[in-house]
Amino acid sequence: MATTRFHDDTPDVDGLYADLAAADLQPLWVQPGLMTRTPGRLTPHIWRWKTLRDLAERSGDLVGIDRGGDRRVLSLSHPDLGGLPFATHTLWGAVQFLGGGELAPAHRHTPAALRFVLEGSGVWTLVNGDPLHMAPGDLVLTPSWTWHEHHNPGTEPMIWFDGLDLPLVRSLDAVFFEPGGEELTSYEPAQVSRSEHLYSGAGLLPAEEQAAVQDPASGRSSRLLAYRWPSVDAALSRLIDITGRRAVSVRYADPATGRDITPTLRAEVHRVLAGHRTRAVRTVGSGVWVVYRGSGATVIDGRLFRWTTGDMFVTPSWAAVDHEADADADLFLLSDRPVLEALGLARAEQTRQPRDVPAEEA
Amino acid sequence: MATTRFHDDTPDVDGLYADLAAADLQPLWVQPGLMTRTPGRLTPHIWRWKTLRDLAERSGDLVGIDRGGDRRVLSLSHPDLGGLPFATHTLWGAVQFLGGGELAPAHRHTPAALRFVLEGSGVWTLVNGDPLHMAPGDLVLTPSWTWHEHHNPGTEPMIWFDGLDLPLVRSLDAVFFEPGGEELTSYEPAQVSRSEHLYSGAGLLPAEEQAAVQDPASGRSSRLLAYRWPSVDAALSRLIDITGRRAVSVRYADPATGRDITPTLRAEVHRVLAGHRTRAVRTVGSGVWVVYRGSGATVIDGRLFRWTTGDMFVTPSWAAVDHEADADADLFLLSDRPVLEALGLARAEQTRQPRDVPAEEA
Amino acid sequence: MATTRFHDDTPDVDGLYADLAAADLQPLWVQPGLMTRTPGRLTPHIWRWKTLRDLAERSGDLVGIDRGGDRRVLSLSHPDLGGLPFATHTLWGAVQFLGGGELAPAHRHTPAALRFVLEGSGVWTLVNGDPLHMAPGDLVLTPSWTWHEHHNPGTEPMIWFDGLDLPLVRSLDAVFFEPGGEELTSYEPAQVSRSEHLYSGAGLLPAEEQAAVQDPASGRSSRLLAYRWPSVDAALSRLIDITGRRAVSVRYADPATGRDITPTLRAEVHRVLAGHRTRAVRTVGSGVWVVYRGSGATVIDGRLFRWTTGDMFVTPSWAAVDHEADADADLFLLSDRPVLEALGLARAEQTRQPRDVPAEEA
Amino acid sequence: MATTRFHDDTPDVDGLYADLAAADLQPLWVQPGLMTRTPGRLTPHIWRWKTLRDLAERSGDLVGIDRGGDRRVLSLSHPDLGGLPFATHTLWGAVQFLGGGELAPAHRHTPAALRFVLEGSGVWTLVNGDPLHMAPGDLVLTPSWTWHEHHNPGTEPMIWFDGLDLPLVRSLDAVFFEPGGEELTSYEPAQVSRSEHLYSGAGLLPAEEQAAVQDPASGRSSRLLAYRWPSVDAALSRLIDITGRRAVSVRYADPATGRDITPTLRAEVHRVLAGHRTRAVRTVGSGVWVVYRGSGATVIDGRLFRWTTGDMFVTPSWAAVDHEADADADLFLLSDRPVLEALGLARAEQTRQPRDVPAEEA
Repeated sequence: MATTRFHDDTPDVDGLYADLAAADLQPLWVQPGLMTRTPGRLTPHIWRWKTLRDLAERSGDLVGIDRGGDRRVLSLSHPDLGGLPFATHTLWGAVQFLGGGELAPAHRHTPAALRFVLEGSGVWTLVNGDPLHMAPGDLVLTPSWTWHEHHNPGTEPMIWFDGLDLPLVRSLDAVFFEPGGEELTSYEPAQVSRSEHLYSGAGLLPAEEQAAVQDPASGRSSRLLAYRWPSVDAALSRLIDITGRRAVSVRYADPATGRDITPTLRAEVHRVLAGHRTRAVRTVGSGVWVVYRGSGATVIDGRLFRWTTGDMFVTPSWAAVDHEADADADLFLLSDRPVLEALGLARAEQTRQPRDVPAEEA
Repeated sequence: MATTRFHDDTPDVDGLYADLAAADLQPLWVQPGLMTRTPGRLTPHIWRWKTLRDLAERSGDLVGIDRGGDRRVLSLSHPDLGGLPFATHTLWGAVQFLGGGELAPAHRHTPAALRFVLEGSGVWTLVNGDPLHMAPGDLVLTPSWTWHEHHNPGTEPMIWFDGLDLPLVRSLDAVFFEPGGEELTSYEPAQVSRSEHLYSGAGLLPAEEQAAVQDPASGRSSRLLAYRWPSVDAALSRLIDITGRRAVSVRYADPATGRDITPTLRAEVHRVLAGHRTRAVRTVGSGVWVVYRGSGATVIDGRLFRWTTGDMFVTPSWAAVDHEADADADLFLLSDRPVLEALGLARAEQTRQPRDVPAEEA
Repeated sequence: MATTRFHDDTPDVDGLYADLAAADLQPLWVQPGLMTRTPGRLTPHIWRWKTLRDLAERSGDLVGIDRGGDRRVLSLSHPDLGGLPFATHTLWGAVQFLGGGELAPAHRHTPAALRFVLEGSGVWTLVNGDPLHMAPGDLVLTPSWTWHEHHNPGTEPMIWFDGLDLPLVRSLDAVFFEPGGEELTSYEPAQVSRSEHLYSGAGLLPAEEQAAVQDPASGRSSRLLAYRWPSVDAALSRLIDITGRRAVSVRYADPATGRDITPTLRAEVHRVLAGHRTRAVRTVGSGVWVVYRGSGATVIDGRLFRWTTGDMFVTPSWAAVDHEADADADLFLLSDRPVLEALGLARAEQTRQPRDVPAEEA
Repeated sequence: MATTRFHDDTPDVDGLYADLAAADLQPLWVQPGLMTRTPGRLTPHIWRWKTLRDLAERSGDLVGIDRGGDRRVLSLSHPDLGGLPFATHTLWGAVQFLGGGELAPAHRHTPAALRFVLEGSGVWTLVNGDPLHMAPGDLVLTPSWTWHEHHNPGTEPMIWFDGLDLPLVRSLDAVFFEPGGEELTSYEPAQVSRSEHLYSGAGLLPAEEQAAVQDPASGRSSRLLAYRWPSVDAALSRLIDITGRRAVSVRYADPATGRDITPTLRAEVHRVLAGHRTRAVRTVGSGVWVVYRGSGATVIDGRLFRWTTGDMFVTPSWAAVDHEADADADLFLLSDRPVLEALGLARAEQTRQPRDVPAEEA
């Protein structure tokens, strides 16, 4: 829609505008920027692992976590979002630090969350009572409205990436939250969780008699709650073998339906071999990327961002994105793509970007 | 999540906070209000027809609409939304005024829109070239990315309600917009549009040979683009007859699928007979109500709003809502309910409200 | 698979064959015709209205229908099917005759049925107690496992076409049948049935509050149980108007989902204007056609069948089919197409047929 | 429907019947047995491995398989089916024998097939060119209309169970068949097939960029073409561990959708531990069971069938079925259940059977 006023203002018009404002109305014709030719409300942004890790550790030293408290979480706060603790308009990204012997107590909420482990191991995340062991590269889900808590029975701290759809669910005004009770949840540490016992055979599902075993609380989210890094690594290697490509990607899916891990979140790992540069693509919807392994650079709408292990960056909606790896790289991607698809708003197109752009200072 | 700081701040902690801010990070434990027990980010609000109509007419007198310009639209701007021209976090509501002889030129955009006619008749809305006649009570759709324009060949002005998913699509950063060309679209006024020729028989669809007739641009939105008030009125009357209820409602649906008019918007008409009060219900998701006929009052979370023909009001997410009619009333409702359903976030429950609450002054 | 034996039989081989037979085994290599290049197990066949009507009337005169008895039904028995009372391998077609004052008592069965009225009016078909009035051209559904009975309170007989999926359901060994009780069902004749009150507005569905109104027994079959001829006639006329074609067709669908009337049956009406000949098409799946109005001829795999009002004919799977009308014609089609689609076996292609073939003597 | 004639035949009635027969019509009221209270068109039946294996070997000795010939297949021919080479009305079951150095050449057909390996290993089944290695307990799919051929480059014969939906597809008159060309297909033996490279990570799917990799010919059938016995064995063991049950079952599913291996066929393995007897269940639809391991007995509608490794038996629609194992047993089940579900005809109920029934002599 047009963004310019096309007439001289007169006293009558000024009076009209004043009366409109008093009546909680706004004239569309003086609203520039409501309808843009293409999406583009956000710039790309990068956070460095060195900083994230350092600040997470300092928080661990200085800020306690106890029953009256909460998660020790540092959220990626995109500078374009006016102080909101959100990575994009729809996605929450954060690092969570849980020290040895610490416990993040149970609660549940309608925003869905995932944990992608960056450092350390040995924490047990209980999802509706099912204990999930956590080790580097593992993806652990805490779907919408499932009870979840984190126990670190060891002595070493752990750091993981937290991804949520909280900004989206908040903009839909659909947030419900419930804290757990005072008693500690007891659990039996088991190297393989209940959900993995049931759903970790590819194409092999518990038959109808076992239908009741499925946890109804998991609703339309994945029935498999933990995806182990060695499986992901193997799947990526097989893809490279069979396709002969130098860049491949794997989508985490509900083994029982093939749908995304939650109705709101897509998770993928993209592997780019050293020396390869991917084709540039524009996609509607935003993403948060976490470098799990390797180093390289991503060009986003003509700006170059160099990255190495642990760095996190945001790709905005409809930005042209390509990656180039210096060393074999695995990039974890969290995106809101299922939302765009469900609402009929998904678009994507291949595009081109300059091959030589100077790196951002960030 | 907890909303209180649970330790004394020390110089170290202050330093940490400063460094976090400098690094575009935020500590979750000092973010009150991110996770609320229940939704509740918006208050109810009402706009009066007398005001809306008066200001629409004054705009018609004072502000031209021509090829360089735009729609003459007054948007409901909820006072809780900090100056944004939006009715709720997800919904746009507005009155549009098109004078005799005026033309709102062609454009298209990814936000989907509907028009519910309040006053006047004779305008032709062209949707991808299909001319749709408009008369009071008619619902006319301009689905996502369809070309549309409004022609008023008569001498009398028309006023209609505009409903869009623009706030939602904007928060998803998925807005695309394209203005039409310079030439005027010619059209053959036909009392029945192409889409109605194809899809206005209940349960009677063009068979496979006619599949190609379907406009691909309409995508997953309704293939029927105009719903006539006499049909809606008759359907409501039949429902009252057969159910014996004193409050019934009809949902506008795609005749070819039964799904909502667009993936993002639900439209309904609720008929409440004089003297009847409906049961109170809470629903996740927000709504904009337009009183098409009758008078009465709606209690929203314990606050009473009296209304009469043409008034428009907002019901926030999870607010308890019931209606009582003084005179037989028809309430048009626009809501974001399909979004909540698609994303697994829909909840509803019956509740109670006080029978006697004083009316708001508004 | 090959259909010829490719070696000389020896005593050893003969012994093998004998032992196989004794063990309820069969050697595939001596089974000609199991796998055919294309479908083609059935020839086309036609039944004449003059004969059907005459024999239905004589049955009405000679064979009583009372509580101990059953429907007075003459089933189309395809001569290729070895004496089975079936029109094709999947479809049942028949004429049913109900005299003035007669009653076909209640029962229910898993095979789904439809009634397409050919002559007379005034019968009430009760479906789970909902009384549906019947007049020429009306389509009335009695979906799987719904109680149904037919009352003729008038003095004149009625004749209608019965279509069922009985041969299919029988070949799946999924037939359940239950006779009704001894008492007569009382009903309130109402010109509009409950299902039509709820579902006869195109694109207008009872909103969520009315969900409970839907009869759960109707399962995945259409919620609308009666489709009136004037609506079908109007829909066909609109299609001809808007497309400019001289042959159009309408599919009967569930207004709440757009799906076929039952998971097993598709019903359509094809209108061919006088002088027009349709393009020849091959389709996997069989059909029973009932000429509701007009006269003309159909070429089926090169054989010409002339028809006039009331005639019924079968088109086999993958046969090339085209129609030519002498006088404006409406052809009702019952097919098993939804089954083929659900099972991934649907194919169709346009083809050619000779323009001049001599008519069959039938 | 009633099965008795309820009136005396008169000369007029006799004449009517004669005229009906001449007109290819049948009076419903003299058709006993069309509508049965419950399904029950088939009896249970068992085939012994000792016999199957012996006859397969003798066939291998006596009957060649060469380019002009065909598969060396012995089909289970249920004695109730009047000489048709079918195990049930919808299912084909057979043993296939492929000697060392033999080749079953390429063809394709719309009936879908699966191979469950019983004895031997080393055969390569090529499905649209993708070579699938075969070993005992493996399930290999050749979905509808995929090219497939079997190569035995070793010196030892192999025997596997063939399951097809041929009887169903034939009763739908939807069989298409195409023989392959004369040239031999060359292939690169690879221990892991292309489909397994792409789809053998549970919940890990090739992301969108790899969508084109999916073979379009596989249509709505499983994208994974081989399910290895060790994976199935492990999944069953995990199920027993986590549920504590003594009888569990696993369903083979498309990893990309969770749907059955084909739209027409369900495959499962049921594990029953020694000494356990399952609860009796009735299900609409028929099944062919293959004992992969162990021994025990199955009671089918009150008749007891003892079985041991390699035996195959049929459970008819709606028969009460329970299993009891003497030694830990794994039973492979092929059923038509997806068809019944897709067509709205699926029913199941728990029931009781006598605990002591004498074994059948078979």
